[in-house]
Amino acid sequence: MAKAKATEPTLPLAAAPDSTTVPASGDEVMRFAGNRSLQLDSGAEIAGLEIAYRTWGTLNADRSNAVLICHALTLDQHVTGTHPVTGKPGWWTRLIGPGKPLDPARHYIICSNVVGGCMGSTGPASINPATGKAWGLAFPVITIPDMVRAQAMLVEALGIQSLFAVVGGSMGGMQVLQWAADYPERVFSAICIASAPRHTAQNIAFHEVGRQAVMADPDWRGGAYAEAGVRPDKGLAVARMAAHITYLSEPALQRKFGRELQRDGLSWGFDADFQVESYLRHQGATFVDRFDANSYLYITRAMDYFDMAAAHDGVLAEAFRKARDVRFCVLSFTSDWLYPTPESRAVVRALNAAGARASFVEIDSDKGHDAFLLDEPVMDDALKGFFASAEQARGLTAGLVK
Amino acid sequence: MAKAKATEPTLPLAAAPDSTTVPASGDEVMRFAGNRSLQLDSGAEIAGLEIAYRTWGTLNADRSNAVLICHALTLDQHVTGTHPVTGKPGWWTRLIGPGKPLDPARHYIICSNVVGGCMGSTGPASINPATGKAWGLAFPVITIPDMVRAQAMLVEALGIQSLFAVVGGSMGGMQVLQWAADYPERVFSAICIASAPRHTAQNIAFHEVGRQAVMADPDWRGGAYAEAGVRPDKGLAVARMAAHITYLSEPALQRKFGRELQRDGLSWGFDADFQVESYLRHQGATFVDRFDANSYLYITRAMDYFDMAAAHDGVLAEAFRKARDVRFCVLSFTSDWLYPTPESRAVVRALNAAGARASFVEIDSDKGHDAFLLDEPVMDDALKGFFASAEQARGLTAGLVK
Repeated sequence: MAKAKATEPTLPLAAAPDSTTVPASGDEVMRFAGNRSLQLDSGAEIAGLEIAYRTWGTLNADRSNAVLICHALTLDQHVTGTHPVTGKPGWWTRLIGPGKPLDPARHYIICSNVVGGCMGSTGPASINPATGKAWGLAFPVITIPDMVRAQAMLVEALGIQSLFAVVGGSMGGMQVLQWAADYPERVFSAICIASAPRHTAQNIAFHEVGRQAVMADPDWRGGAYAEAGVRPDKGLAVARMAAHITYLSEPALQRKFGRELQRDGLSWGFDADFQVESYLRHQGATFVDRFDANSYLYITRAMDYFDMAAAHDGVLAEAFRKARDVRFCVLSFTSDWLYPTPESRAVVRALNAAGARASFVEIDSDKGHDAFLLDEPVMDDALKGFFASAEQARGLTAGLVK
Repeated sequence: MAKAKATEPTLPLAAAPDSTTVPASGDEVMRFAGNRSLQLDSGAEIAGLEIAYRTWGTLNADRSNAVLICHALTLDQHVTGTHPVTGKPGWWTRLIGPGKPLDPARHYIICSNVVGGCMGSTGPASINPATGKAWGLAFPVITIPDMVRAQAMLVEALGIQSLFAVVGGSMGGMQVLQWAADYPERVFSAICIASAPRHTAQNIAFHEVGRQAVMADPDWRGGAYAEAGVRPDKGLAVARMAAHITYLSEPALQRKFGRELQRDGLSWGFDADFQVESYLRHQGATFVDRFDANSYLYITRAMDYFDMAAAHDGVLAEAFRKARDVRFCVLSFTSDWLYPTPESRAVVRALNAAGARASFVEIDSDKGHDAFLLDEPVMDDALKGFFASAEQARGLTAGLVK
C-alpha cells in the first residue's frame, strides 16, 4: 500500500498550535527530526526509527484532547476505517464514532504501529541500513517500555505535551500501564483493559509454543526468510492457532462450535471434521497474509519480558509511585483466562497503594479474552462514563458541539 | 527391544483356570487365534491384530482378581517397573505395590498398549501386510470404543470373563466409561479419573493445533516418513509442548517456574530465558524419542471423536443403562482445566440417572490435569477405600494373605 510520509513538526512544543502541522487522518509514517534514534532497554538503539500511525479528529487549541490507543499483539494502527490488507473494518470501530466512547468530533485519536511490528513501523522486516537487507534476527529485542518510548517520541513530535487518555486492551493495556509509570506527567487518564502487569509462566509457555512453531518451520531460515524469498507460513499458522485458543473462553468455544461437524458425518480421516477445527485453520491461514513471522517472535518476546514490578524489587505499587495524579480505569472480563481478573486486581491494588485513583470494573462475559474486541455493552458504558467524568475534569466539555 | 510373543490360549473360557496359560509379567504381545480381526467403528477392520501388554501378579483360581489399567494418550503398558525406552519408572508406580491401592499380591494387573499406539500394539507404524510398508495414513481411523474392543479381545484371550476393575485416568478414563457401557457384564467396578464423557470444542481445538504442528513439518511426508527414513520431530515436539501446557494448571506453572530465569539476566534473544521455556522445550525434545508422530495423530483423533452420549440421542445416561450393576468411582481434580470437574459431574449425574451406584470425589489440588499421575495422597486414599469395599463385595478378601 502507498504510504504518506510525515516528517516531525519542527514547532517547539510550547509554540501556538497550528493545525496544519497535524497530519490528516490517513496512513502516515513519522520520521524523526535529526534521524533520532530509539534507545532500547537492551542497550541497543534503532537509528532512523519510523513509526506508522493513523489519526482521527482534530487536535484542539489547548492540545488537550489527544487520545492514544495502544494496540494488542497482532493488531495495528487501523483501529477504525478499513484495514488496508484485509479490507475488513478496524478492530475497535465499535468504540469510535458519534455516540461512542471515543469520537473524532471531540477527540484527536492517535494509534501507531508498535516498534517491532509489521504494519509500517520499524521492525524485523524493515531494511537494516547497515546491510541493505531485512533485519531479521539482527533486529534488537524490544520491550513494552521500548514500544512506549517510541510512542512518546511520536506524541511529542505531533506537538502534544499531555495526552487526555491512553487506552488499550491486552498488550495495549500493558503499554497503558507503562505510559502511566514512565510518563505520568504526560497522561491525564489511563484505561487498561483485559491486561496484566506481567506475563505469568503460562503466558510465557503459550508464547514459547508459538515461537517454537515458527522456528520449526524450515522456511523460517533462522529469520532470514525474506532474503530467501520464502515465508514460514505453516509455522506461523500453527502459532496463531495455539494463541487463538487462549483468546477465547471454553464456554464461548462450546457455544460457538460445540461438537458441530463441518458436514454430515465424520470423515474418518484428518480433514477438518469439526467446525472448531475449520475455524482454527482459517484463523491460521488468514493470519499469515497480514503478519510477519519475525514480528510475531519479537512482540511475543516483548510481552514475555514484561514485568512492571521487576524494576522495583517486586513491588508493583512502586512502579506507579509518580502516577498518583493519573486517573485510571481498569477493566477485566470474568471469562478471560489469558489475563484473568486477579491480574487486573493486582494492578488496582498497586494503584491504590500508590495513592492513585482507580476505577475497576470486572465485566461479566463468557467471551474470554477477546471480549475487549467484541460486543460488550457494559464495557462501552463503563468507558463512556469514565471518559465523561475525565473530560469534565480536563475541561474538555466546554465549547464542544454536543 | 526384544518382545516375547504370546499366543491366545485355546482354553474355552469356562475351562478350569490354568496358570500356565497366563503369561508371566513382562513385555508380551498377544496375537489372536485364527488371525482374528479387530472390527472398527469406521467399518474397516484390522487383520492380524497384535496387542502389546504387561501383567503383574497372578490370576486367582476364580479368575476374579483381574484389574485392567487403561493408559492415557501418550502413556503405555509400562505402568510400573522400568520403561524400556526411557529407563524411567512406570507412570503409575506409586499406585502399584504392597500397601498401595493395587497390589500384585492380591490383583492380577493388566495393561495393554492401545490399538493405534506405538509401543507394540498394531498402529500406524506397524507393517501393513498389504504393502509390506508401514501403514502411515493408510491405517484406519480408530475410536475409543475400538481401543476397548481390542482390550476386550485381549482380556478374553487371557481367560478372564469378568474384570474385578477397569481403571484409568484421562483417555484411560474414557476407556473405563466405554468398558462399562459396552461390556457391563464383564466389569465389576470402574474407576474413571480426571476424564470426560466427550471432547469439548476446546479439547478438540488443542488437539487440532498439535496435529497441524505435526502435519506442518515437511518431514511428516504425508505420514510416510518411515519409508523416507525421516521423522517429523520438530512438529511433534511443538505438538507436545502445546499439549503439555494443558496438563498443568496455571498455579502449578506459576509455583514451579514463575518468571524464574535459566541464568542470570535476560538473553535479549530467543534462547530459553525463562525456566518454563526450557522445561517445555525439554518436554518436546524427549517426547519425540518415545512416541510416533502418526500414533499421535490417530490417538488424538480417537479422543476428539469421543462422545458417549452421541450414540444415544445426546442422553449420556442411556449409555450406562445396562451398567447399573457396575460399581463406579469417579475422581476429578479442582485445578484440571482440560477435563474439569463439571465433566465428571456429568458422568456421575448420568450414572445416577441410569440407576448405577457411583462414588464421586473432587480432589482439591493445584496440580492440574496431571494430578492423576502425581503425588496426591487423597486420590490414593480414595482408591484404597473404593477397592477395599469392592474387594469385599467381590469376595476377594477371603483366602488372601494380608
